[in-house]
Amino acid sequence: MESAAIQRTAKLAVSRRQRSTPYTPRVEALGVSDYSIVNHTVLPKGFGRSIEEDYWHLREHVQLWDVSCQRQVELKGPDAGHLAQLMTPRDLRKARAGQCLYAPLIDQQAGMLNDPVILKHNDHHFWLSIADSDVLLWAKGLALGYGHNVELREPDVSPLAVQGPKADALMEAVFGSAVHDIRFFNFAWLDFRGHPMLVARSGYSKQGGFEIYLDNSALGLDLWDALWEAGQPFAVAPGCPNLIERVEGGLLSYGNEFNNENNPIECDMDKYCSTDPDLEFIGKDALAEIRAQGPARSIRGVVFDGDKCPPCANTWRLTVDDQYAGYLSTAVWSPRLKSNIALGMLEKNYRDAGNVVIVECSDGTLREGVVSILPIT
Amino acid sequence: MESAAIQRTAKLAVSRRQRSTPYTPRVEALGVSDYSIVNHTVLPKGFGRSIEEDYWHLREHVQLWDVSCQRQVELKGPDAGHLAQLMTPRDLRKARAGQCLYAPLIDQQAGMLNDPVILKHNDHHFWLSIADSDVLLWAKGLALGYGHNVELREPDVSPLAVQGPKADALMEAVFGSAVHDIRFFNFAWLDFRGHPMLVARSGYSKQGGFEIYLDNSALGLDLWDALWEAGQPFAVAPGCPNLIERVEGGLLSYGNEFNNENNPIECDMDKYCSTDPDLEFIGKDALAEIRAQGPARSIRGVVFDGDKCPPCANTWRLTVDDQYAGYLSTAVWSPRLKSNIALGMLEKNYRDAGNVVIVECSDGTLREGVVSILPIT
Repeated sequence: MESAAIQRTAKLAVSRRQRSTPYTPRVEALGVSDYSIVNHTVLPKGFGRSIEEDYWHLREHVQLWDVSCQRQVELKGPDAGHLAQLMTPRDLRKARAGQCLYAPLIDQQAGMLNDPVILKHNDHHFWLSIADSDVLLWAKGLALGYGHNVELREPDVSPLAVQGPKADALMEAVFGSAVHDIRFFNFAWLDFRGHPMLVARSGYSKQGGFEIYLDNSALGLDLWDALWEAGQPFAVAPGCPNLIERVEGGLLSYGNEFNNENNPIECDMDKYCSTDPDLEFIGKDALAEIRAQGPARSIRGVVFDGDKCPPCANTWRLTVDDQYAGYLSTAVWSPRLKSNIALGMLEKNYRDAGNVVIVECSDGTLREGVVSILPIT
Repeated sequence: MESAAIQRTAKLAVSRRQRSTPYTPRVEALGVSDYSIVNHTVLPKGFGRSIEEDYWHLREHVQLWDVSCQRQVELKGPDAGHLAQLMTPRDLRKARAGQCLYAPLIDQQAGMLNDPVILKHNDHHFWLSIADSDVLLWAKGLALGYGHNVELREPDVSPLAVQGPKADALMEAVFGSAVHDIRFFNFAWLDFRGHPMLVARSGYSKQGGFEIYLDNSALGLDLWDALWEAGQPFAVAPGCPNLIERVEGGLLSYGNEFNNENNPIECDMDKYCSTDPDLEFIGKDALAEIRAQGPARSIRGVVFDGDKCPPCANTWRLTVDDQYAGYLSTAVWSPRLKSNIALGMLEKNYRDAGNVVIVECSDGTLREGVVSILPIT
């Protein structure tokens, strides 16, 4: 098949099916220039500035990100805990209420289905804050087949991320000093004008910050406006998950770096996969088999030379001495490292840091690259 | 919440996760100007011409549509037939191999999950050609819970639609006169340069035509090029599901006209819902209850006045004497009817054809509309 470079100028068609969010009017007014679609919902991906400008701003100031597309799958009822545990190899038995847990979801063959953050409200109430696949359908199918007593739905919850080194200061201005007490990957309920709001110290960057799980769409513009106004002294800007920052930080994306054809071991999620023989979860046997054999490939960084590369619309093949060595899934120019950087899957024989690979870039060039551990520093 | 009009100029961000297709290089070369995302895959939605030009062309000539986003969920194995029947209220017991069956998929509460065309290969082998939700996860969850002996996967199948009144002539030029023997909503395997290809007389328009279920991505460009070259005498053009034609024809879209909050009865799919007490399927009891009470709302057309309306990025409220009367989900100007036309859900008391409603258009105008049965003629 010929290389399929998706052009940068095609617009996103408008329809109800590509759902807008409680923050869309503000995002539009601020000049959103690029959208992606995640969970049937728009994700702003640019505001007319270069990705490099956004990168430097994110590392220095604070940004508001409309990540409403991180939809919640709510599990509520007597069997909620049992179902949640069935869905992930991560041991949830000692999880505390108020904790956020990054967790691979796998099928019976140990193929990845999603990698949500699980928010534990209590033993009978969980939210799975999902990446781009319909986990609700998986949960519904399982619950019906297993005869679970659990209510499953997508609630009216639209996360707004506040990311960057000035996030603490901005959040304090709106929610008070209680924000400082929230530890990494924990959440608390804080007051916003008489409404309790779930605030977590989390987010899809390495610059620190919070995610506010707005659970009432009608308050979306008030919340945005309050953060926007309070953020003026901190040079607040609209933003989005920044590709440069995420590749440098080794933050993976379901559908990009991995999909159902990958298992959590090759995605470097071994630490989230319990080996306790007493823990029951779907895909346990397949996972044990993969672990026993060792993964056939592994997620790695690749730093490669040449001019600024185009975006990865497809995987780019990697070779060593004309032998297949793996593929890249995401690539971008890093202005800090003054090099192209990428995430990809490296086959067993080629995955050691320092190995040299040839990158078959979609612009037709062959580039020399070096395998790196993550994060890329 | 303020009205959230998504601007027409935001670009679709590029990533592997928004999958391209075997035909993408040709679609790009022909100047695709708009994309939508369906099943994590790009769907071309425009080629720089007006939607009115595309409409007249589709009604007069023939178009090639890259509908690879109609992904297949393959059910194969001893329990494939049982699982397929569990998933839909449509009676599949008398379905023949080679038949295409439009079928609502519902959950235990009779909420819609998708509305695929089911292709029956044989009693133990089905494809569900799906709209925009991850039916594979639903099927996997059910099969695991019920302990079914069935293989489930998304095969390498990328449908290419040939639509319009000259579709028969074009298809004959490429596949021979055997295409004329394929009856509506049936399929046959026809030769393409030594490769058997599944060809169905079907498609998401009322202008007639075929869908070719390419099952080998490597042949995608050859197939496109063959149809393109043979299509020159027929004024072939690249195209896509046309919004004007689909609203006039009353062709519904999952995620637009209905979603999991709707049941098949209110979506006018009663004729696809068996009432046989011996047939077992998920949602049977809930569906019987809805049927007994009668649906609270129904899909209808609405013809309304004023200037060309903007696209529906959200639902538009309908009222009668200031009372809530339903909503519109898709609206567009029809150059043939010289009026705006729309699809929507009308509440019980307001759904009779001829009723007058007020449309709260997202441009801030109030328009007078008239309820219509479907199709809108």
